[in-house]
Amino acid sequence: MPKDPDPARRSERSRQAILEAARELVSEVGYAKVSIEAIAARAGVGKQTIYRWWRGKGAVVFDAFLALSEAGEGEAGEGGGVTLPDTGDIEADLKTVMRATVAEFADPAFEAPIRALNMEIVSDPELAAQYRERLAGPVDEAKKARLRSAQRAGQLAADVDLDLALELLYAPLYQRWLQRSGPLTPAYADALVDLFLKAMRPS
Amino acid sequence: MPKDPDPARRSERSRQAILEAARELVSEVGYAKVSIEAIAARAGVGKQTIYRWWRGKGAVVFDAFLALSEAGEGEAGEGGGVTLPDTGDIEADLKTVMRATVAEFADPAFEAPIRALNMEIVSDPELAAQYRERLAGPVDEAKKARLRSAQRAGQLAADVDLDLALELLYAPLYQRWLQRSGPLTPAYADALVDLFLKAMRPS
Repeated sequence: MPKDPDPARRSERSRQAILEAARELVSEVGYAKVSIEAIAARAGVGKQTIYRWWRGKGAVVFDAFLALSEAGEGEAGEGGGVTLPDTGDIEADLKTVMRATVAEFADPAFEAPIRALNMEIVSDPELAAQYRERLAGPVDEAKKARLRSAQRAGQLAADVDLDLALELLYAPLYQRWLQRSGPLTPAYADALVDLFLKAMRPS
Repeated sequence: MPKDPDPARRSERSRQAILEAARELVSEVGYAKVSIEAIAARAGVGKQTIYRWWRGKGAVVFDAFLALSEAGEGEAGEGGGVTLPDTGDIEADLKTVMRATVAEFADPAFEAPIRALNMEIVSDPELAAQYRERLAGPVDEAKKARLRSAQRAGQLAADVDLDLALELLYAPLYQRWLQRSGPLTPAYADALVDLFLKAMRPS
């Protein structure tokens, strides 16, 4: 393709190509076997282009998954963060989010790289710490912000630990997906939200 | 050690040594690198002794974990199955079981081999099917039997899908353990059971 004359646009196109190459390669060969060389070759850029923006493989792979997560899990908020929908109706909002999440995990193109990353996270405590700091942490904060808003509105019990609450909402789906132990359907998402809301009902 | 003159006792001692060797090796080097030769050497038996009782590595490793699970998760019932305590008080019984489960997962000697096995299960669909059939399946049936007994006693809602109910109770603990994302304490077990019982309350 002809070189774009606009440097900013050319830069953004390279960045997107690198992130996509990183995701594809992790999914195809596993995190351990991915190299900066392979990402550069697949993205059609030089290694120096990658090192200009990222300090190494871990950093670029995490940005790749972060971009995927931002596209999937909610809208990008101020400062590039993630936010969850807040229409004021916690049941409708959680069903929207959980149906979308279930659909992502049921989609081979989305779930394969996430599964590859998960394997690495579970067996590599250092990568797990990076994952929590850069990916899971900010997303969990966005989810907790939505639950807090529902607590303030009197829709959820105010005295429940939100780390446990998030586990109650997401871990059943995570386990079912990871262990391939049951169907991932919109009805499943709804049933999970219904049980979660009953557990979290104010007394 | 001198050879026991009683063949049945000698047999049982060999069987236990083989199961223990299998668990230790999976924990130390990972399932993929364990061989029947290594299990036999560690247990101090010949390979033929292992092949007399098991058809291969998968079978002996699963029996090793099954034995661990039976020792940990409840009492052996009729026919070698697993049962959960049933004093008639579902809250007390679940707290007993979940405190014991949390303690096991917080114990490095117990959790290391289970973590090694989990990694294999998640990345190997054939092993996952064996795991469900031989280990998770029977244990889940025992857990569901206890929940059904509580449904009959009117202590839990009768219309909740028990696969989803089991996920709600166990998946938060599974995820917290697998991702090392929070402390595993008796207070955590109790808080999880409290939320679960609230979600499952009859209407």
